[in-house]
Amino acid sequence: GIESEDQDDIDLHARNIATILEKTYYNVDNHASESLDWFNVLIAQTISQLRTEALISDNIFHSLNDFLTKSDFPDYLDTVKITEIDIGDDFPIFSNCRIKQSQDGSGRLEAKIDVDLSDTITLGIETRLLINHPRPMIASLPIQLSVSLVRFSGCLAVSLFKPLVTSPLKGTSNGSKKTEKKAEIESGTAIRFSFSPDYRLEFNIKSLIGSRAKLQDVPKISSLIEARLKQWFVERSVEPRFQVIRIPSLWPRSKNTREAVADKTD
Amino acid sequence: GIESEDQDDIDLHARNIATILEKTYYNVDNHASESLDWFNVLIAQTISQLRTEALISDNIFHSLNDFLTKSDFPDYLDTVKITEIDIGDDFPIFSNCRIKQSQDGSGRLEAKIDVDLSDTITLGIETRLLINHPRPMIASLPIQLSVSLVRFSGCLAVSLFKPLVTSPLKGTSNGSKKTEKKAEIESGTAIRFSFSPDYRLEFNIKSLIGSRAKLQDVPKISSLIEARLKQWFVERSVEPRFQVIRIPSLWPRSKNTREAVADKTD
Repeated sequence: GIESEDQDDIDLHARNIATILEKTYYNVDNHASESLDWFNVLIAQTISQLRTEALISDNIFHSLNDFLTKSDFPDYLDTVKITEIDIGDDFPIFSNCRIKQSQDGSGRLEAKIDVDLSDTITLGIETRLLINHPRPMIASLPIQLSVSLVRFSGCLAVSLFKPLVTSPLKGTSNGSKKTEKKAEIESGTAIRFSFSPDYRLEFNIKSLIGSRAKLQDVPKISSLIEARLKQWFVERSVEPRFQVIRIPSLWPRSKNTREAVADKTD
Repeated sequence: GIESEDQDDIDLHARNIATILEKTYYNVDNHASESLDWFNVLIAQTISQLRTEALISDNIFHSLNDFLTKSDFPDYLDTVKITEIDIGDDFPIFSNCRIKQSQDGSGRLEAKIDVDLSDTITLGIETRLLINHPRPMIASLPIQLSVSLVRFSGCLAVSLFKPLVTSPLKGTSNGSKKTEKKAEIESGTAIRFSFSPDYRLEFNIKSLIGSRAKLQDVPKISSLIEARLKQWFVERSVEPRFQVIRIPSLWPRSKNTREAVADKTD
């Protein structure tokens, strides 16, 4: 049955762990954590390029606008319009990387990495608060909101694995491995990542109301927005939830080969 | 014109480099190289999983057999049949990671990483050497060859970038960025990697001939095989050639979210 096959997988996995750690000279109990300064530079370069392109082609605005247009807001909020975008100018700092065995019973080895970001990433919107009581649309209040992410810190768990699950919707990472399809075996490696529940996600939320009335509703809207953003993050990336991103095979292939253009400095 | 836009890109890029290095506290001239012990463990775990699955489902044999069947061998070699596969039992060791500016004139920051692999990865084949002179197929000699990769060491250069080139066939990594397609902008990050030309790739090649005659042809076949393997590697992954592998966006998405199954140890 599937359960005993799973158990075989787990036993085999456990036997492999000792070998892997021995051959890579890594002792999970006392290996010093490692710096990731090089990785910070590569990530920063990528983010910097993304920002440059965002400024050129305004694509962040369009993506966010699409997202907000399609989002399902409560019926007391009117259409949401973007008034301000600040894509930030700082970079996340990854540090303190160490290998631990996962606590999910599989014994899988994962890298735990501290992540810290202090930046100001702002989205300003305007909308209207619709007063639907006692009758629908009896009144509306123009609202301007500005939401800034000012701090994120957390512990990221990363591991690599060969995904073999045939249906991408199944998602029980270790389950039903042997119902294989030959085509899936070629599909490369996947990154699995999630954040520990003790993350810090700090927002700075400002709100303005265009009329004198109903000031007492503003904190409710701010906290609604903040809760929504945190919920979005938790539902996707905080343990026990995790993200699975397939990366294509790194095996060198002709179709992925490029050649540098002539050197422009010589 | 495209050339002046390219020049603008390069200038902008150069201005960004100083900012990136400053904000990530990295001085390319004197930053100590960093260890990658954690990465070795993750890679080893992935390779170990791959080997386990290869043993279960025999897929390495089938992939290689397909490859050999489709390969274009010289007309003095008959069909190539696999007689031995050893997928090795050791793992590559990555070390000594440092950020340098690329020498290709773009100023791009890349991580240089030493890679070392001592293992025995063997492919044994049998075929026949066809003697086509003075007449086609006048004779044939059964040959058994065993090719082992026993050592690889080299310096890997890795960088990340946001690919924006619309046609995947164009490939001039920095060129023609602004002929954008909105759909392409969402396509995530790409890894670019290549090896320095001073790599070491050592093979151990054994050959047996089934008849007494023509022993002097054997080293020619061994060196043909070795040259072919090295050529395969050089043409794909040695500077100025490089591999470009797109990885999907790491932005957390519902469709990539999984939830851990119930803890089996508690």
